[in-house]
Amino acid sequence: MTDNRRFVLVRRPDGTPVPDDFALQTAQTPTLAPGEVLVRNVYASLDPAIRGWLDDAPSYMPPVPLGDAVRATTVGTVADSANPEFAIGDWVLGLNAIEDYSVAVPGGFTQKIDPAAVPAVTNYLSVFGAVGLTAYFGLLEVGKPKAGETVLVTGAAGAVGSLVGQIARIQGCRVIGIAGGPAKCARLTERYGYDAAIDYRGKDEAALVAAIAAAAPDGVDVIFENVGGIILDAGLMNLRDGARVALCGLISEYNAPAPVGVRNLWQLIVHSASINGLLVRDFVPRFSEGAAVMGGWLAEGKLVFDEDIVDGIDNAFAAFMTLFSGGNDGKLILKI
Amino acid sequence: MTDNRRFVLVRRPDGTPVPDDFALQTAQTPTLAPGEVLVRNVYASLDPAIRGWLDDAPSYMPPVPLGDAVRATTVGTVADSANPEFAIGDWVLGLNAIEDYSVAVPGGFTQKIDPAAVPAVTNYLSVFGAVGLTAYFGLLEVGKPKAGETVLVTGAAGAVGSLVGQIARIQGCRVIGIAGGPAKCARLTERYGYDAAIDYRGKDEAALVAAIAAAAPDGVDVIFENVGGIILDAGLMNLRDGARVALCGLISEYNAPAPVGVRNLWQLIVHSASINGLLVRDFVPRFSEGAAVMGGWLAEGKLVFDEDIVDGIDNAFAAFMTLFSGGNDGKLILKI
Repeated sequence: MTDNRRFVLVRRPDGTPVPDDFALQTAQTPTLAPGEVLVRNVYASLDPAIRGWLDDAPSYMPPVPLGDAVRATTVGTVADSANPEFAIGDWVLGLNAIEDYSVAVPGGFTQKIDPAAVPAVTNYLSVFGAVGLTAYFGLLEVGKPKAGETVLVTGAAGAVGSLVGQIARIQGCRVIGIAGGPAKCARLTERYGYDAAIDYRGKDEAALVAAIAAAAPDGVDVIFENVGGIILDAGLMNLRDGARVALCGLISEYNAPAPVGVRNLWQLIVHSASINGLLVRDFVPRFSEGAAVMGGWLAEGKLVFDEDIVDGIDNAFAAFMTLFSGGNDGKLILKI
Repeated sequence: MTDNRRFVLVRRPDGTPVPDDFALQTAQTPTLAPGEVLVRNVYASLDPAIRGWLDDAPSYMPPVPLGDAVRATTVGTVADSANPEFAIGDWVLGLNAIEDYSVAVPGGFTQKIDPAAVPAVTNYLSVFGAVGLTAYFGLLEVGKPKAGETVLVTGAAGAVGSLVGQIARIQGCRVIGIAGGPAKCARLTERYGYDAAIDYRGKDEAALVAAIAAAAPDGVDVIFENVGGIILDAGLMNLRDGARVALCGLISEYNAPAPVGVRNLWQLIVHSASINGLLVRDFVPRFSEGAAVMGGWLAEGKLVFDEDIVDGIDNAFAAFMTLFSGGNDGKLILKI
């Protein structure tokens, strides 16, 4: 079988990742033990969460070992099978790595997918994947918005945030988004239906606090938080009583040399409010339910989504880093 | 009527309060409008929350105005009444101020109390007051501990913390307390029944993380947080999946020149955990229910509590500051 190109972690990043933290290596294509399948990864999902997996820090899964290909959710086809349930050519979704071929043990998150059931097979990495279901379950089950409430979304133009804003609108909420730059802010209101958009660029915490207050004079009931740092701190200064913060990510912290943290936790006491950590893994048993509802909204034209597909494993590093510069437009996917 | 001695805020503290932020002034005893009562404050509750009311910052109640006596919960007797429901000599509990006489409008938190119903009338400021009910409702309704779970209490020897630890034990939990100094730590295990005590003095965040991990090798299910800063950050590094942090106070921050904040929020995502702000005001309609249960535990000998009564309005400043140095033993009360 052909050689296996792998995007390998060779050094743990110190703050912002640099190209020398990674290497594109070629290895022998692995052989299979009984029950395993060999997946030809066709598309890999590039997510902010990957940054966390590169650190040797306690998390919800072990760090990527040095010398291993960088972990990522992929969709691909079965290239070889030692499992009677999987035939060569079957499409599968799973937590694999940025490499041509991964060995997968079916079960859990690794499952067969039907490319004919969706407009494009990449949708299993976006609207029908962890990203879409993070938006769906995170907003509805963790943020718990009620019709008429005000929802603030940070990282609002991102893969998750753009869906969260639309789902909140479908729930009858007023929705405010924070994003970086005028182009993204225009996309929030014009494409994703946000009621108001705030450009965080050039704003300090006080200016962010004022901008949120101007967009939500009565405060916010739900924050869907992807960013952290002063953006979260500014949101906390605008809570209504009983507000819920669904904490999905802290992308402003991932490359910081030291954790940024938040300083306005006192506001949780003032408003009997809460911050609730959100891991989509907790909702795996309900994924099909969520995907069905999202599919219905898509069919009805109530939901739009964007994918930003970068071609070639050679571009893995540069593509990944756009997540932190805000350079991507929609769900970032690498075609391997 | 006699003059009214008042402990007045004359300047907003910049960080740690200093004596010159306050003045003991004497004013005319106020006269009453119809419906009001004049309360001779006998005991005032000195609470960390008072520090927050001294700042001109958004909170759950307006700041104490400059030139006004410092707000405090008091118990006292009716000295004059323009309200047919209140007779001279009646005992009342209310949110008044550190002064001989306050004008109160009955209703809401201001209510008649029966000194014969409790061992000492000061108990309305401790175990049967906001302190006791903060411990009761905060732990049970916000922390939601289940039998067999591990509960971590910070500020564990304090007025609220000492009760929280005991209530958690009554619920069948394993209870770990963090306090300052060997004497307080001994009191945690010997008097309040904590399973383990950690002395935070001399420990940096890493040492605190390790000490909690040693006392709770499987992590903690509930944190009852009174302190904030590195103590909260250390607790966050020891969460179990689904853990709840009941955020009662952040005393380490109240005198800090800038907010200290927390830097390990990422752990909320890792463990699908939450931080929930706790204001006892939310439970006012259930106060009698909570007081009845606490009274039952007291009668059964399952609960002990301590009051530290300082005599004289002249000592208001020095007494208040012991809350931040950890110098008080039990619920701090000022006899006016």
